[in-house]
Amino acid sequence: MPLVRIDALRADRDRLEALGRAVHDALVQTIDVPPGDLFQILTGHDGTTGMLRYGDHFGPHRDDGIVIVTITMRSGRTPDRKRALYRRIAELALEYAGTEPRNMVIALNENEPIDWSFSDGVAHYHGPSEPEG
Amino acid sequence: MPLVRIDALRADRDRLEALGRAVHDALVQTIDVPPGDLFQILTGHDGTTGMLRYGDHFGPHRDDGIVIVTITMRSGRTPDRKRALYRRIAELALEYAGTEPRNMVIALNENEPIDWSFSDGVAHYHGPSEPEG
Amino acid sequence: MPLVRIDALRADRDRLEALGRAVHDALVQTIDVPPGDLFQILTGHDGTTGMLRYGDHFGPHRDDGIVIVTITMRSGRTPDRKRALYRRIAELALEYAGTEPRNMVIALNENEPIDWSFSDGVAHYHGPSEPEG
Repeated sequence: MPLVRIDALRADRDRLEALGRAVHDALVQTIDVPPGDLFQILTGHDGTTGMLRYGDHFGPHRDDGIVIVTITMRSGRTPDRKRALYRRIAELALEYAGTEPRNMVIALNENEPIDWSFSDGVAHYHGPSEPEG
Repeated sequence: MPLVRIDALRADRDRLEALGRAVHDALVQTIDVPPGDLFQILTGHDGTTGMLRYGDHFGPHRDDGIVIVTITMRSGRTPDRKRALYRRIAELALEYAGTEPRNMVIALNENEPIDWSFSDGVAHYHGPSEPEG
Repeated sequence: MPLVRIDALRADRDRLEALGRAVHDALVQTIDVPPGDLFQILTGHDGTTGMLRYGDHFGPHRDDGIVIVTITMRSGRTPDRKRALYRRIAELALEYAGTEPRNMVIALNENEPIDWSFSDGVAHYHGPSEPEG
C-alpha cells in the first residue's frame, strides 16, 4: 500500500534503485509492510527541465544530493512507528545509496482503506461486500 | 477538481492521452465530475531517469505495463462511489489504452473545498465572502 | 515544511525557478513559512513523455501556459490564510514568470506534524521525547 515517490537530482538507474530499496526495506522493517507491497515512482531530475529547490530548514546544510521522499499510506501508524521509519530510511539510504542523512527529506500523506485499488478495479482493503459506513 | 497524476513506463503521447481519457471519463461517469473539470499530469518514465518499481501485492503478477494513478479530490465520496470509480477506470483503461486490469493501481487523497484554487488566485469552492469556520 | 510540486509545460530552468520563487515568496508572506523552509520539485513537461491535460472548469480559458501547483503542509491554516496564499501566488507568478492568473491551478494537501522528517531521520516537528498521543 504505501505509494512512494522519490525525487533526486541527476540520479541514474542504480542510484534510484538503491534509494527505492532503502525506503522499501525501511517500510518492511519498521511498519510491517509486506515485501510484495511495493509501489514506487522514482525520478532523477536533470537540473534543467526538472529541478529540486531547497533551503536550510532546521539547520543542516543540504546540497544537490538531496532526496525527497513522499509516502502515501493508510492512517493509523503511531508516532513511534513513524519515527522508526524515518530513522531507518536515513540509515539505509546512507548504506545503500551513500545519501547523507542531512539530505534526506521525508513527508507522509495518509488516507483510508477505501482509497486504494491495487488491481482489477477492486478496493482491496475495503472489500466488495462490506456495508457502507 | 480532481487532480490526477498518471505514471507509466515508456508511454508515448497517444498512450498517455488514452490513459488520461480513461480516468477522466470514469470520474465523469461515476462520481459526477463535470467534463471541464479536468486537471491531469501524465508522465511516461523512460526506465532510467524515471522508474516504476512494483511488487505482487494482493496477488496479480504485474509487469512494466503498470499504470499508477493518484487522484486528489474533495472528501465526501462514499465507498460505493469509489468502488464504482475504480471499476470504471480499470474498464476504460483496458478499452482505451489496452492496459490490463492487473496492472492498474489507484490511490486517492482527499482534501477540503478550501484547498482548491482553479484560477485567478480564488478559492472557488469556498467562496470569497463566506464567514470563516 | 511545505513540500511544493510545480508542473508546467515546456518550462525551462529560468521559468521553473521563477515559478518556484513566486510560490515560496507567497508562502513566506502569507502563511509565515520561514524563508529557509523551502522544498520544491519543479517539472517542465515536454508535451510528449510528460503532458498536462486541462479543461475550462469555473470558466477561464486555460492554455499551455497552465501551471499546476500542489502544496503539502501541516493542517491548521485558516481559510482566510489559504485565500491570501492563493491570491499572492497568482500575483507573484504573473510578476516573476509572466503566468496569467487564469492559468494558475493550486491544490493543498494537509498532514500532521509527525508526518515530516527534514533530515537525519528525525521527526522535527514532533520531537524525540514527547509522549505518544
